[in-house]
Amino acid sequence: MTKITFLCETNPGANRETGINPAYENGMDQYVYDFLCSKGYDVTWIKISPTDDGSALTDEILENTEVLLWWGHIYHKNILDSVAEKVVARVNRGMGFFAMHSGHHCKPFKRLIGTTGNLSWREIGERERVWVTDFGHPITKGLGDSFVIDHEEMYGEPFDIPNPDELVFISWFQGGEVMRSGCVWKRGRGKVFFFRPGHETLPTYKYESVQKVIVNAIEYLTPDEIVAPYGAPKIPVPPEGDIKTW
Amino acid sequence: MTKITFLCETNPGANRETGINPAYENGMDQYVYDFLCSKGYDVTWIKISPTDDGSALTDEILENTEVLLWWGHIYHKNILDSVAEKVVARVNRGMGFFAMHSGHHCKPFKRLIGTTGNLSWREIGERERVWVTDFGHPITKGLGDSFVIDHEEMYGEPFDIPNPDELVFISWFQGGEVMRSGCVWKRGRGKVFFFRPGHETLPTYKYESVQKVIVNAIEYLTPDEIVAPYGAPKIPVPPEGDIKTW
Amino acid sequence: MTKITFLCETNPGANRETGINPAYENGMDQYVYDFLCSKGYDVTWIKISPTDDGSALTDEILENTEVLLWWGHIYHKNILDSVAEKVVARVNRGMGFFAMHSGHHCKPFKRLIGTTGNLSWREIGERERVWVTDFGHPITKGLGDSFVIDHEEMYGEPFDIPNPDELVFISWFQGGEVMRSGCVWKRGRGKVFFFRPGHETLPTYKYESVQKVIVNAIEYLTPDEIVAPYGAPKIPVPPEGDIKTW
Amino acid sequence: MTKITFLCETNPGANRETGINPAYENGMDQYVYDFLCSKGYDVTWIKISPTDDGSALTDEILENTEVLLWWGHIYHKNILDSVAEKVVARVNRGMGFFAMHSGHHCKPFKRLIGTTGNLSWREIGERERVWVTDFGHPITKGLGDSFVIDHEEMYGEPFDIPNPDELVFISWFQGGEVMRSGCVWKRGRGKVFFFRPGHETLPTYKYESVQKVIVNAIEYLTPDEIVAPYGAPKIPVPPEGDIKTW
Repeated sequence: MTKITFLCETNPGANRETGINPAYENGMDQYVYDFLCSKGYDVTWIKISPTDDGSALTDEILENTEVLLWWGHIYHKNILDSVAEKVVARVNRGMGFFAMHSGHHCKPFKRLIGTTGNLSWREIGERERVWVTDFGHPITKGLGDSFVIDHEEMYGEPFDIPNPDELVFISWFQGGEVMRSGCVWKRGRGKVFFFRPGHETLPTYKYESVQKVIVNAIEYLTPDEIVAPYGAPKIPVPPEGDIKTW
Repeated sequence: MTKITFLCETNPGANRETGINPAYENGMDQYVYDFLCSKGYDVTWIKISPTDDGSALTDEILENTEVLLWWGHIYHKNILDSVAEKVVARVNRGMGFFAMHSGHHCKPFKRLIGTTGNLSWREIGERERVWVTDFGHPITKGLGDSFVIDHEEMYGEPFDIPNPDELVFISWFQGGEVMRSGCVWKRGRGKVFFFRPGHETLPTYKYESVQKVIVNAIEYLTPDEIVAPYGAPKIPVPPEGDIKTW
Repeated sequence: MTKITFLCETNPGANRETGINPAYENGMDQYVYDFLCSKGYDVTWIKISPTDDGSALTDEILENTEVLLWWGHIYHKNILDSVAEKVVARVNRGMGFFAMHSGHHCKPFKRLIGTTGNLSWREIGERERVWVTDFGHPITKGLGDSFVIDHEEMYGEPFDIPNPDELVFISWFQGGEVMRSGCVWKRGRGKVFFFRPGHETLPTYKYESVQKVIVNAIEYLTPDEIVAPYGAPKIPVPPEGDIKTW
Repeated sequence: MTKITFLCETNPGANRETGINPAYENGMDQYVYDFLCSKGYDVTWIKISPTDDGSALTDEILENTEVLLWWGHIYHKNILDSVAEKVVARVNRGMGFFAMHSGHHCKPFKRLIGTTGNLSWREIGERERVWVTDFGHPITKGLGDSFVIDHEEMYGEPFDIPNPDELVFISWFQGGEVMRSGCVWKRGRGKVFFFRPGHETLPTYKYESVQKVIVNAIEYLTPDEIVAPYGAPKIPVPPEGDIKTW
């Protein structure tokens, strides 16, 4: 099965110890981890506490990862630039990168897309309707034209991203906003997917439709092969052989 | 006129002091600078010697730049990450970025596109034919279907870039390779242009067709307006007003 | 000033004679025509009644058109295939094509994009919020992050279109849907723009924001030059001269 | 196995009866048909003679086709518009369309892309090098960075197509031209692939690399599911229920 690394903040909202999250009895992070394991994936879980800098994502782990799921929100700045840099390099050689919810602001994602990832937001638990815009896309398999999440944080346009190679979902919010909430970009031999829903204090990851998206996306992001770095080869002898240039 | 900053390596090939460049009597850098001035642009020239780290590109200069031309080759690694980061931020707020020749490997360019920019290469002074692939594009104004550069360094596919938003030129090389040699990407409110020809020891920038490309590209890259950073605004009150969410 | 042709159905809703349209005292078609003239454009108005087949759009008119605005709804099928074909050819040579509202189903638009243009719809006069998704785009000049139309017909996703080259607007509807409502595609030397709002029995075209979009779009769609058809030239002598192939 | 329909002109160059084609003892069409059968596909062969109008491609055949390969050159104009129209509709519902060589000018292809497909050309049997530009793409599986065809017809830029969703190959020609020779576009639930090499009087389809491309492309174009037409559904009751609009 696909080798997954699930990097997730252990923040007060997401974590069980704090006991303040009514949505997931054992914390959001534990819930997502258990879900991924239940699907048979080979999962490595990396916890990012307030004092972590991401160095737990070692070269060895990264090398053995086919799809990296990244859920972060509050501690983005703590992550080392060097970690972001090696994630980007790894994606380029053929690793899927799944930016979950507030992952739009994590360092590797911003470096992969080249923009700020900024957006507007509001946290009042409003209704979100996620609409399929690319109805033949593998990530939408088994979904109808739309699905509902009863209560979510709002993220709204303008969303500062490059035009996605594939725009899979657009969200409608009860309060009046819209958002490109499922986007794919290709970078080197790897694919990047951003999926908006997933606020830590709301039971979003318990929705069957959301779980379908995650499974579909992991399958879509799994690279055919992991390759050696593509370098900058010097080709001293032209394919056309001994040509006369002067 | 457009406010331009021309950042250019003072490398042994490009610079006059070394006296080893037969193509430009006063160095390539001086030639390009003079050309830009002759077109009436308001030009700031930043020289990158082997001991420079790019900090000469101050916030004040960057703020007053509409289009940043970046020619680098040997000293890419000397540039501070913080400089690359602020260039990316500035592009996102509305500045044109013009990666010239080996600029495909400069730090800001790689961060803007999210890939390695790697390619194959060879330096035997072979013939290059630059073909227009997007024949209505403003950057191709005044050019025919193609133009020739008699002697150039070869850069070849695979070129590790994201699919360009606009593919303007493809090059043919005498030795047998091809290359996407004119590419546009949009990032935030700014545009990024890569233009391949421009090896420092060959008189490429003296070609009228190449000069047309530069002038057209500067016009195309000039932003309509320089804007304040787009943040991540909290919108406490929904546009739809007092909605019931629970 | 830009030479515009405004092709518009004289349908019961849009037209003044029927007297059933409370939104525009002289009909929607007259209102839009007057607005275009007030901006100084050189406007040719072609009325499509239930018995017209589009042949009033002669070769001569088409040849003298820089931007063609097409508003149709009920009589799409009456338009001759040959008319659609020559519009497509004209766009490819450098003419802007502006599909207004139900123009998503007109023959030339469907041929230009290659898909059905199908979408879901509802007509209860609900509120529409149009959000800017590409905030540096020329078509959004002078608009804020969004604007409101108090009452509109709903068009919703999935909208069967190819991924737009530029996605300018996404609409939010009171009833729960979203829609990519401002899209640009490039075809040959011409550009195609679809703009969703504009139901004939509602005063949409009286909104200042909508009028700004129309003016901005016309400027954006205006070609730099009108060119001769690009053929399929035989190049008997290779650019490389007398090469040995066998 | 994938259900394929292979539509091919029986033109003097391609066909065995004429006996003028030294490249394929039984004609090019027979060779390609045999090759497809040898790979285990369920193949329907439709021959287009000078007097055929394409009506042999019946609704029933089309309905049972997952990937349609279209090789045509001289008789494009003989094909009925209605046949082109139903092929486009079928692609949109989920059928792969493979435009082979001169298929860039066939009616369904031009309608799917919305441009003329024009290009420059020359027939002197020169060398073609096909370069991979999207090195992680499924269509490139098992190929190196490039492959050579010893003698081919030249097709060159400018090639009048919309910017491909995926640019897979670029060709280099001995005579000095380049060409985007492997391009993918998505249309509705179907994918469209154009692959340049394949001139009828040269043994291009005997090359192992070309055969790999064909097999890879068929797999890539095969739709996950064949779906009912997507209509334009009226949604009388809003997802949000009984909303107040006036």
